[in-house]
Amino acid sequence: MDTRDLRGRVEGSKDAFLEELKEFLRMSSVSAREGDDADFRGCAEWVRQKLEEAGAEARLMETQGHPVVYAEIGEGDRTLLSYGHYDVQPPEPLEQWESNPFEPTVRGGSLFARGVADDKGDVMSRIQALRLYREEVGPLPFKLKFFIEGEEEVGSPNLAPFVRANGELLRADACLWEGSMKDEAGRPMVFCGTKGMAYVELRARGASHDLHSMYGGIAPNPAWRLVQALRTIKDENGEITVDGLMELAEPPSEGDLEALKNIPFDDAALRESWGVDHLDRNLTGEAALREYLLKPTANIAGIHSGYAGPGSKTIVPSEAYVKMDFRLVKGQSPGPVVALIREHLEKRGFDDVEVVDLHGVEAAKTPVDSPVVRTAIEAWEGVGAEAVVYPTVGGSGPTSLIATELGIPTIMTGAVANAGSRIHAPNESVKLDDYFEAISYFAGFFGRFAS
Amino acid sequence: MDTRDLRGRVEGSKDAFLEELKEFLRMSSVSAREGDDADFRGCAEWVRQKLEEAGAEARLMETQGHPVVYAEIGEGDRTLLSYGHYDVQPPEPLEQWESNPFEPTVRGGSLFARGVADDKGDVMSRIQALRLYREEVGPLPFKLKFFIEGEEEVGSPNLAPFVRANGELLRADACLWEGSMKDEAGRPMVFCGTKGMAYVELRARGASHDLHSMYGGIAPNPAWRLVQALRTIKDENGEITVDGLMELAEPPSEGDLEALKNIPFDDAALRESWGVDHLDRNLTGEAALREYLLKPTANIAGIHSGYAGPGSKTIVPSEAYVKMDFRLVKGQSPGPVVALIREHLEKRGFDDVEVVDLHGVEAAKTPVDSPVVRTAIEAWEGVGAEAVVYPTVGGSGPTSLIATELGIPTIMTGAVANAGSRIHAPNESVKLDDYFEAISYFAGFFGRFAS
Repeated sequence: MDTRDLRGRVEGSKDAFLEELKEFLRMSSVSAREGDDADFRGCAEWVRQKLEEAGAEARLMETQGHPVVYAEIGEGDRTLLSYGHYDVQPPEPLEQWESNPFEPTVRGGSLFARGVADDKGDVMSRIQALRLYREEVGPLPFKLKFFIEGEEEVGSPNLAPFVRANGELLRADACLWEGSMKDEAGRPMVFCGTKGMAYVELRARGASHDLHSMYGGIAPNPAWRLVQALRTIKDENGEITVDGLMELAEPPSEGDLEALKNIPFDDAALRESWGVDHLDRNLTGEAALREYLLKPTANIAGIHSGYAGPGSKTIVPSEAYVKMDFRLVKGQSPGPVVALIREHLEKRGFDDVEVVDLHGVEAAKTPVDSPVVRTAIEAWEGVGAEAVVYPTVGGSGPTSLIATELGIPTIMTGAVANAGSRIHAPNESVKLDDYFEAISYFAGFFGRFAS
Repeated sequence: MDTRDLRGRVEGSKDAFLEELKEFLRMSSVSAREGDDADFRGCAEWVRQKLEEAGAEARLMETQGHPVVYAEIGEGDRTLLSYGHYDVQPPEPLEQWESNPFEPTVRGGSLFARGVADDKGDVMSRIQALRLYREEVGPLPFKLKFFIEGEEEVGSPNLAPFVRANGELLRADACLWEGSMKDEAGRPMVFCGTKGMAYVELRARGASHDLHSMYGGIAPNPAWRLVQALRTIKDENGEITVDGLMELAEPPSEGDLEALKNIPFDDAALRESWGVDHLDRNLTGEAALREYLLKPTANIAGIHSGYAGPGSKTIVPSEAYVKMDFRLVKGQSPGPVVALIREHLEKRGFDDVEVVDLHGVEAAKTPVDSPVVRTAIEAWEGVGAEAVVYPTVGGSGPTSLIATELGIPTIMTGAVANAGSRIHAPNESVKLDDYFEAISYFAGFFGRFAS
């Protein structure tokens, strides 16, 4: 075990590290957009080359969608798998960005760009950590496998077949999923699970074309129809009321509930960072934390119908749709959840409301007392930080493919992002200090992992 | 009274009439757009010039917004006021148009363009009728006043001060409001009133920026907030439930109810033209007709929040808004209605939902047995058509300024548009034959009006 502190060496290479990260961020790898294939491949190829430069054997592996970047390096008894993604969320609404989302800009010690917090900063910090370790310490005393996909932000539609076809290649003793983040107080968070998700679009249709709203009293209005359907999905208190949905949820383990008690959840700071005076349903303290980490959600990510321009247009819209993500806990598989939503709406006469299953992902859990969790905590101590362990995270990812299907303990650690990083939103950013620290952190993690 | 049939003369001038109408339609006078002032003025000036060419003394009269075109011609004891508008609705969504909305195109005997049915075809048919009458019959035996505004499609915000400042100028024995239309069976409709309207935007706000939807269980979601507010505005059966709103409505008169019986309302044809298998709330027959003509509405003209693009984006939106037009009947003034909506929402804890009063207009009624209604019916007989008299129309307009404030009996007649004209929607059109007939019709109306 070599746990040498490499922070001094990182200090001397900041400019180079920053320039290389900016290069990565300039590539607008938005996976939700159609027809960017050449750009996308260029971004994947760039990542592959960086892994080669760090000493790994790296290649692009084809999928039905964007390619996976795969790389291997090191020898030893143990194997560590590192997962990340090189794609990013769409940057819209563009007018809310203070600088071009694809021209990384430093302001007040932070770097602003789409994807810098989710997940390009994290991906690059690991690659730089590898390079640093090899230059300063020597050959890696374990096998490290990188596995970087390009479709995480659209729900990883081609990852399952890829993982299932490459189970042997991906075999490992532990997996570091994409990075975590620092909490409001600057403490790094280690996550031991992810929520599942069922992403659906509900669509309602009225007349074959927009009508003059003089017909508002007699024409079917698809916007009203969606409102009527939505009112059966949550009650007037904001509680989810889809028949059978909550009953599927497995209750949290004792370890999960214990871990929850050690999480310093500051809902006042959260409200302040969001600029709101209350949380949903006026939740506070531990009740809010349980809701956030251990309960399912029924979120409206978008609802659209009719005229959106300035002034007033008097029409009955011809169509309406709502995009909803249901974040799920263990026991709630996305397929059955979508079936429940359909049955629920049909039973109430909404068989005209189309339920489009856009994608789903399973929830996943690694026990909070696993060895890899211990290594993550010790590596944080190595850079002078005290980590907080979360039984799970509010977000989702295809971790169940690794954690459940391949049976590899899987956690999220490394904290390039912070609570104010605005991931998925305009003005996404990371603190430069956090980025440089993450490089030291991962190098230290590598030093501890082999033993 | 000269009721000479001028249809033969119209027949010989079709090409010229069509070209002149197309010229009018090419001017994209969208009043909902900002900063089109020079274009707008050009359109108003064009109309003024056409009125001059038809022999009238015409001028532009300034308002706080777009100018009114005013013209006078003829001498006699009686005075007829003609109201129309040269502005049009926005053409969006553009991708649903089969031809450019501002490049008028003839297909299958119909002319397609934004504004052709509402209201440019109507405006031009009256000007051509005047020219025709003077060329074929002689000087007008009564005073005809034209009064053509440029802000009808944004709710005529500057018309009230204009009318109030020019009451003497506009004085008349009767007023022909903008044109009516033909019903599904091709019968011209004569309307004796308009509904009022309160157009509001409800706005809800969440965090100061879009959040990752991992926070979907605890972050305030403005889209859900609007859905919760909307569920108090209509019940699950689609009935309006705003406290006190329905109680304000004056009941229809005996004459109105009698007129209703003579209206050949074909809800099956309406459903077919709209491509729907039922009307709102499964209304049929006379119940649907009463709802359409004599009851208020609470229509969603647009609702928008969060991600609208392709694929799935996982956010909690930061803001949401819904555009609603409430069509009102006599007794429901828009100011008090907006106040009721605010009180209703506040009483239910929705004081965070902003109610923006975008504009309002009063309902107006002229008795169905007024002399001008009789003249309209006889003029239709003069071109071989049987008119159907409606006590009111589902749509709104600032008719109360003339009908109520100036006390001038005001009706809508002349039928350039038809039930399939898609007014306010993509592929707006009129039948060419209806346009040419309207020219004969108005010439005949002028001949009858003096007596």
